[in-house]
Amino acid sequence: MEPVLANSVRLEADGVHVLDRRDFPFERNWVRCETVEDVAKAIEDMVTQSSGPYFAVLWGMVLAAREAGALPAADARAHLGRAAERLENTRRTNNHLRKAVAAVLAAVDAAGPTTGTALEAAALAGAEAGDERYRSRSRALGTSTAALLPDEACVLTHCWADLYLTETVAAAQRAGKRLRFICTETRPYLQGARLTAETLAEMGVDTTVITDGMGAAVLSSGEVDALVTAGDRVTMDGHVVNKVGTLGLAVAARAFDVPFHALVQAPDRLAPTAADVPIEYRDGAEVLSTLGRRTASLRVRGHYPAFDVTPPRFVTSVVTDRGVYAPDQLADYYLGEQR
Amino acid sequence: MEPVLANSVRLEADGVHVLDRRDFPFERNWVRCETVEDVAKAIEDMVTQSSGPYFAVLWGMVLAAREAGALPAADARAHLGRAAERLENTRRTNNHLRKAVAAVLAAVDAAGPTTGTALEAAALAGAEAGDERYRSRSRALGTSTAALLPDEACVLTHCWADLYLTETVAAAQRAGKRLRFICTETRPYLQGARLTAETLAEMGVDTTVITDGMGAAVLSSGEVDALVTAGDRVTMDGHVVNKVGTLGLAVAARAFDVPFHALVQAPDRLAPTAADVPIEYRDGAEVLSTLGRRTASLRVRGHYPAFDVTPPRFVTSVVTDRGVYAPDQLADYYLGEQR
Repeated sequence: MEPVLANSVRLEADGVHVLDRRDFPFERNWVRCETVEDVAKAIEDMVTQSSGPYFAVLWGMVLAAREAGALPAADARAHLGRAAERLENTRRTNNHLRKAVAAVLAAVDAAGPTTGTALEAAALAGAEAGDERYRSRSRALGTSTAALLPDEACVLTHCWADLYLTETVAAAQRAGKRLRFICTETRPYLQGARLTAETLAEMGVDTTVITDGMGAAVLSSGEVDALVTAGDRVTMDGHVVNKVGTLGLAVAARAFDVPFHALVQAPDRLAPTAADVPIEYRDGAEVLSTLGRRTASLRVRGHYPAFDVTPPRFVTSVVTDRGVYAPDQLADYYLGEQR
Repeated sequence: MEPVLANSVRLEADGVHVLDRRDFPFERNWVRCETVEDVAKAIEDMVTQSSGPYFAVLWGMVLAAREAGALPAADARAHLGRAAERLENTRRTNNHLRKAVAAVLAAVDAAGPTTGTALEAAALAGAEAGDERYRSRSRALGTSTAALLPDEACVLTHCWADLYLTETVAAAQRAGKRLRFICTETRPYLQGARLTAETLAEMGVDTTVITDGMGAAVLSSGEVDALVTAGDRVTMDGHVVNKVGTLGLAVAARAFDVPFHALVQAPDRLAPTAADVPIEYRDGAEVLSTLGRRTASLRVRGHYPAFDVTPPRFVTSVVTDRGVYAPDQLADYYLGEQR
């Protein structure tokens, strides 16, 4: 059975429907986005996250093509360009949004100056190709990750690695490996406690939740075989940019000799090093509450760097859709490929 | 002005009154403990924690003396012994409870076989001496800690170090130092977000709350001058046993060259090394909720080691009431003292 979150952003006749991850699994509410602006807001407001925004941008670009339907070709293309910019800038740290936009615009531009239903058809074809490519690359990455794990493995993970994680679990299950997972709850949005935990349970995986402060304790206990997380962005020199909290786990994993595998479809050629990746700082007030209830003193402020940067010395391997690389060998990913 | 939490366990005519830290500062409820068993339950149920149980045990032993009032001396002493055992075993990781019990029993035994109001007076004198001793030792420790910090310092702390922290801040303020604090929220009970943050704000300290996963990010940023936490127990060979989460922060502090100062009145001569300290595992269900609301998938279990153990290689200094020691020099604390 496909986990609920594996197909949680959908294009329909009346807009893009996005499963609201902020209260999943306690509620199963879908947010309907009728316009590109609705999609952008949904991403900014964390209605969806992890791989979700990639799909939301794909389908959001189809909405943009619909919105542009009546316009002359040049104006329609300009509208798509503005939509692309709006969507791409909703969250800046992960480079998937740029790729989603590019997938649709490439198909549109390949179709030549066009308008109306032909424009929408071109955008849709681009979005569908982008959807399929993302899923097949995640599948390849998951297969490589599963191959790194022992036949009976306890895996520590952080936040919600979405299709990278579900494909890793599916590949391990196909290979007859028995995985059990420990997942951090991942404050402030609790993606680990809610999304990862629920989805692993859906997939029949033995799952234990810990608070974000317990990672080092379980890593030092000897019971964890590997730390596995996504990388929202991996730079060419091997820095892993991912949900804040990854760094602390990676440092502890290194201190206690547990391998850390970071999953990303590809390192980012546009980011030679960490200074090239903009780190998103969200509103500090978001850390002072939990599911809408105030959980901190009313007299203080919060601080919310949404991502942290793990230097390559704390990374064992970067697992991509083309296999496994040491963090100082990522240039090999692009060997033989035209730049 | 004395912070509310600095005097939050009180002996009254009708029992021991304990400020309920589980919902402070949102609520200010006092739990009245009429019996020794009430006090023990309050400690087990986390009504009070950090230094709170020490004081609760002192006054709980006075309740025991009251309860024994009508008994012959030998029976009364036996009743005190049973109360001591019950209270001392409520939480096993911190050794303060043992010391609180000892303070009262020493005074009772010094008074010779006694009963009635004389017994209660002896117990009360012992408890008062224990109270004063704990406060003065915390004051000495705070003064030594403040001296380790630069004149303008950003301090990262974890959980709630209670009097050790308030005395450090008070000493720094007396010395004209300007401290600002970053405190981890400390799930699952949120002692950092609630108790530490509120108390620092009460003391006029600039305070920022982060989630437990953000410690490494702020340590790697260069903005933190020192990591300062309590040690629930420090072994003679320099292992710091403290609220789970301390280990991860200490490992990250070492990785990014930030000193880690662990505060404890004295290393524990009865604990040569970490194997001598029982680690409390609390009910895993406690990590699946936040302030009573479920925050994790309903389909998974939780895991709750309440403490972790930081090896001496990650500890810069252990600050005691007799000054500052390197973690491998703790035997010096007892130099010249009869064993």
